Formats: sequence, C-alpha cells, structure tokens
Amino acid sequence: MTYCVGMMLRRGLVFMSDTRTNAGLDNISTFKKMTIWEEPGERVITLMSAGNLATTQAVISLLDERSKLPEDRTSSLMKAPSMFQAACMVGDTLREVIGDLTDGGQRADSGFDATLILGGQIDGSPPRMFLIYPEGNFIEAGDDTPFFQIGEIKYGRPILVRAFDPDLTFESALKLLMVSFDSTLKANLSVGMPLDFFCYETDSLEKRHVGRVTADNERFQTISKGWGEALKQALDTLPDVGMESI
Amino acid sequence: MTYCVGMMLRRGLVFMSDTRTNAGLDNISTFKKMTIWEEPGERVITLMSAGNLATTQAVISLLDERSKLPEDRTSSLMKAPSMFQAACMVGDTLREVIGDLTDGGQRADSGFDATLILGGQIDGSPPRMFLIYPEGNFIEAGDDTPFFQIGEIKYGRPILVRAFDPDLTFESALKLLMVSFDSTLKANLSVGMPLDFFCYETDSLEKRHVGRVTADNERFQTISKGWGEALKQALDTLPDVGMESI
Repeated sequence: MTYCVGMMLRRGLVFMSDTRTNAGLDNISTFKKMTIWEEPGERVITLMSAGNLATTQAVISLLDERSKLPEDRTSSLMKAPSMFQAACMVGDTLREVIGDLTDGGQRADSGFDATLILGGQIDGSPPRMFLIYPEGNFIEAGDDTPFFQIGEIKYGRPILVRAFDPDLTFESALKLLMVSFDSTLKANLSVGMPLDFFCYETDSLEKRHVGRVTADNERFQTISKGWGEALKQALDTLPDVGMESI
Repeated sequence: MTYCVGMMLRRGLVFMSDTRTNAGLDNISTFKKMTIWEEPGERVITLMSAGNLATTQAVISLLDERSKLPEDRTSSLMKAPSMFQAACMVGDTLREVIGDLTDGGQRADSGFDATLILGGQIDGSPPRMFLIYPEGNFIEAGDDTPFFQIGEIKYGRPILVRAFDPDLTFESALKLLMVSFDSTLKANLSVGMPLDFFCYETDSLEKRHVGRVTADNERFQTISKGWGEALKQALDTLPDVGMESI
C-alpha cells in the first residue's frame, strides 16, 4: 500500500506521499512516490503513485522517454500543451503498461494496477489536479472535491473531510496532512516514513518548498505526540451524553 | 457493510452498532445488529454482527433453538457455564451455518461470511469480550486490546486509538463512540443511523442503559456538528510547520 494526498488550495497545490513499498510484510523498501517535472517560468508538473511499483516506474520511464539516448530525452509531459493533455498522456501510458502485462496473461497476487494523482500548472492556465485510474481515465479536482487521496485512504480521511479549507496556508495544510498521515501510519504497516511533500504556489511556475519529513523530525514528533492530547481535549469540549437522555 | 464497536472499560462493557444493511446501493434496509440475552442476577450476554445478514440471523435463530416449539425454547447461551463456552458455542454455530451454505456449492457475490463481537458476564466471573471470526475461532479483549471493531472499521479507528481510556465513564465512552461512528457515517453509505447502544455495568448482571440514537437526536447532532469545530481548534493548538524548518 501507500498513502498520497493532493490538495487544491486557493494559493496553490500541496502534495504529500509516504515512501514505503512492500511485497509482503517481510519485504519492505523505501521508494519516492512523488516525481516533479519543472521548466522554470513555463511549467511544473507533479505525479504521485499508489499501486504496483513496477507499473508506476515503467510509466515514469516511458514518459521520460528513457528508451532514447540520454541526450535525446525530454519528458513527454514537457510537450503537453495543457494539463488536460498531460493527464491524457499519463492515463494512456498507464493503461498501456498495465495492458502489456495483462494481455500477455501475466498475473500478480496484488495485480499490476496503479492509481495516480497528477497536478501542476502550465503558463497561461490555472493549476489543475487529476486523479487517474488504472483504466487510463481520470477525474479533476474542483471546488466540491478539492483534494484527492490514493492508497490506504480511510484512516486519514475523517480529519481531511472535517478540517480542509481552501483558504489554508501552506503551513497549516502541511500540519493537517501530517495529522492525516500520522493517523494512517499508526494503523497500517504498509504506509511508512519518511514523507515527501511539495507546496506549489500558483503562478510561481517553479519548484520551491520541496522537502522530506523523516521519522526523527522534531516538528513531526511534536505533532504526532500533541495530536492525541489535542483530540482528548477536543472531545472534552463536547457535551457529555447522558445515557438516560437518549 | 456495518460498523460495530465493543469496548472493555474498568466499569463494564459498552457496545454500539449501526443498523444499515444493504444488498447493493439501491437496496438498503434497517436491521438491529445487537442482540442481548438476559437472566437478571445470573447473566447478560450481548452479540453484535457484521457481514451477511442471513448468516447472522441464522446463527441467532439456532442459538435461540427456534427449531423447537416456542414453549421448549431456551437460548443455548443461557446454558453456557462460562463466557468462554458461550464464545465456543457461537463460533461453532457460525462455522456450521457458513459451512452448510458453502459445502452445498452456493456462492454469493459478497460471500456468506460474518464476524461477531460477543461480550457479557456470567455470575461468579468477570465480564469478558470476544471477537469471533467466520472460521469459528476467536480472540479475547484484554488490557492491550481493550476494544474490538467489526465491519467498516478504518474511518472511525484513529479517534478510538487516540482517545480510548479504560477509565472512561459510560457517558464519555458513548460520546467517543458517537464521534467514531459519525466519522464513519460521513464517509461510507453502507453504515447508517440509527445507532443502538448498551452500557453494561460490571456485576450488575442486568440489562440497563440500553438505547437507540436516531438521526434527529439532539445530542448526536450537537456532537456531529461540534466535532468539526473542535477538530479545527485542536489543529490550531498544534505548532505550525514552517516549510523551511523541515
């Protein structure tokens, strides 16, 4: 499993992904699940992936045209005229990779499927974000659905649903995401530290505010420890339920 | 789906279950998933179920010996010498019901499986609580695992993990459960109001504090509405995460 969240705020896009991949409980590794393509001043595109690691790595290699000589390579995403076209390219490539394997009759216990979040901005258009399914089709984030989760989404969802606000600052959004990730980390061994993040500021058209939160990060530990106490206090602020009053 | 929680507190046992059953999104009904057997002063036993409704109803009918004439009936659970024996009886009956169907080659899209929480007290022993699997085996709640969830467990788990305390009062436990159920209700259509609850006081050996929380219950609405605000305030109490400080 995996846990990734992409958020659409008024001030930009925020991405966070964990780094654990596993084939069984006894075979775990750390891989970055966030890839960022940048042409400063022109476009910034971010892709996060959940699912079969070989599938998602193949998709990225194909998009990067790694079949060509190093000097001839440019990512196809760098040529897409719009974010919509970029999502189409990624969806087509994903479907092609999965199709190649399954058409050949290959099978894997956990399947070859992968689900992706693609977000970014190309000069001249506003930022856009898409959730891309293994079938290659996709949906776009909007005012009614301003964030997407992929992977092990359930544990960390309630806090996002309750506390998400499109006017969040990047700092508050990272804090909210850390709480959501912490709830998931505490419940599911297939989601693991460190966490990668990227806060993209609308119209900046460059890759700033990129970082990795390690398990021993002081801020993360403060949030993880403080959240239990904060939740208990939050519960205390609610009125008690008398058993007879119901 | 379904969502049920059984909690073991120092002062007794608390049970809560939702009431939605569904066969597809377009065929939903309301069924009580909590059954309580009582012999005042001697024993109180509670069973909650998640899974195939026909399976769980068959298990309860068999335990109640509904194959006999009404005047000859006593629930097998009324004869169990201990809670452990009661769990064995329920487990055996569950395995038998599922086995009858699957041995005959029957199949159902969602399977015939069911998972149960059994808890109660028999005079002379402390209260005990078990999680019973479709295979008929079971595990017991203890100090390290003081609560069990069955059904759609993920959304409501983080708050339980963080805020559960064996010293909770019944009033606070019900409040905590309402928050956990509310998080689940907001995320999954297969879990629905009203909610049934039962707070069993250790050594009372009687069925008191039983009730149903309907969707228009004022307390529940206050909690549901207040929780979003309380969560946002809880987030605010945590230190912000500076993007540069990570």
